[in-house]
Amino acid sequence: MARLAPEQLTLYLATDPDLLRGRDLVDTVAEAIAGGVTIVQLRDKQADGGPMYEAACRLLAVTRPAGVPLIINDRLDVMLASGADGIHVGASDLPLAKTRELAGDHIVGYSVNTPEDLALAIQCRADYIGIGPAFPTSTKPDARATLGLEGLGKLVTAAPMPAVAIGGVSLENCAATLACGVAGICVISALLNPADTRAAAQRFRTALGR
Amino acid sequence: MARLAPEQLTLYLATDPDLLRGRDLVDTVAEAIAGGVTIVQLRDKQADGGPMYEAACRLLAVTRPAGVPLIINDRLDVMLASGADGIHVGASDLPLAKTRELAGDHIVGYSVNTPEDLALAIQCRADYIGIGPAFPTSTKPDARATLGLEGLGKLVTAAPMPAVAIGGVSLENCAATLACGVAGICVISALLNPADTRAAAQRFRTALGR
Repeated sequence: MARLAPEQLTLYLATDPDLLRGRDLVDTVAEAIAGGVTIVQLRDKQADGGPMYEAACRLLAVTRPAGVPLIINDRLDVMLASGADGIHVGASDLPLAKTRELAGDHIVGYSVNTPEDLALAIQCRADYIGIGPAFPTSTKPDARATLGLEGLGKLVTAAPMPAVAIGGVSLENCAATLACGVAGICVISALLNPADTRAAAQRFRTALGR
Repeated sequence: MARLAPEQLTLYLATDPDLLRGRDLVDTVAEAIAGGVTIVQLRDKQADGGPMYEAACRLLAVTRPAGVPLIINDRLDVMLASGADGIHVGASDLPLAKTRELAGDHIVGYSVNTPEDLALAIQCRADYIGIGPAFPTSTKPDARATLGLEGLGKLVTAAPMPAVAIGGVSLENCAATLACGVAGICVISALLNPADTRAAAQRFRTALGR
């Protein structure tokens, strides 16, 4: 199926247009990759298909030469049209079963918060899962119950596919998070809030020890 | 290609969640169809893929038995996943060429405001076009230059595919609009603002004389 090695999940950046504060999306992602980000998700819940497609094409020019997969949030059509590497869906997005069916050999990721979510991810052959929120976070105001390391560990142990932890993962807690068995961590604000995203990514790679 | 007879464009309803004012989307569309609407576009620029997909599936249960095509705005993936009949894109949506490529035999509609838009619609083999805004309108605040009957007529004459006029089309001007050569008219608020959408659709069919 999809070509996703677990080590490509080590440091996962999901983008958020509100956190760019005037910086160019592609420049910022390029800095993040230079600092050690291994996979990128284009996420913009408000954008129409046109700007989202253009952003995907511009990002691919940076991610592809770096061997970094580009995942599109929710918009499977933008993935298909741009030739991006994969799609990530959650509970409010296109149903996972339909996504898997239409995505073909592309990478399919799914957001998991409960054992029921995990069962669906297994049933629909998601290539990876994002488990969260691991810790309290303000980036996704609609986020569900915080799992903590114990809840995270339970879901990771039961998951046959590689997983990343998402939600409130920081320099301080990322090593303990990794020790739960996830293949990597997903961060948004911890990489986009600092003015120097490259240095922030380097610090995460150091803290992760990978 | 797509199965769209020009007479199916006679009275085209594009939905707008803000105009439902608590009424159920599917019930309202069913009333519109009972009153004479011949084609329906699901349009919700703010919705995630999940709610949009569910709405499409629920609408298909009403449109399909009536022989009324269901067109999805911008979200080609929702069209593919739900099995809806077609996709409509405009300048801010997924590029028309990519849309045509990915849509296969589904109906593809394109929004046209200028001769350049029309040239692209022809080049990409759009199955129908929506020409507008025909008259001043408040439904789409980002709308481009108002065409008037003269501008509408010029574009219609040059179009090899069937066209609907959109933007400010009313009971008062719809007969004159039709006389420009369009296959039909597209309305949003004129059908959704009235509490009795069925009666409003019937009045339009009477005024159109078709």
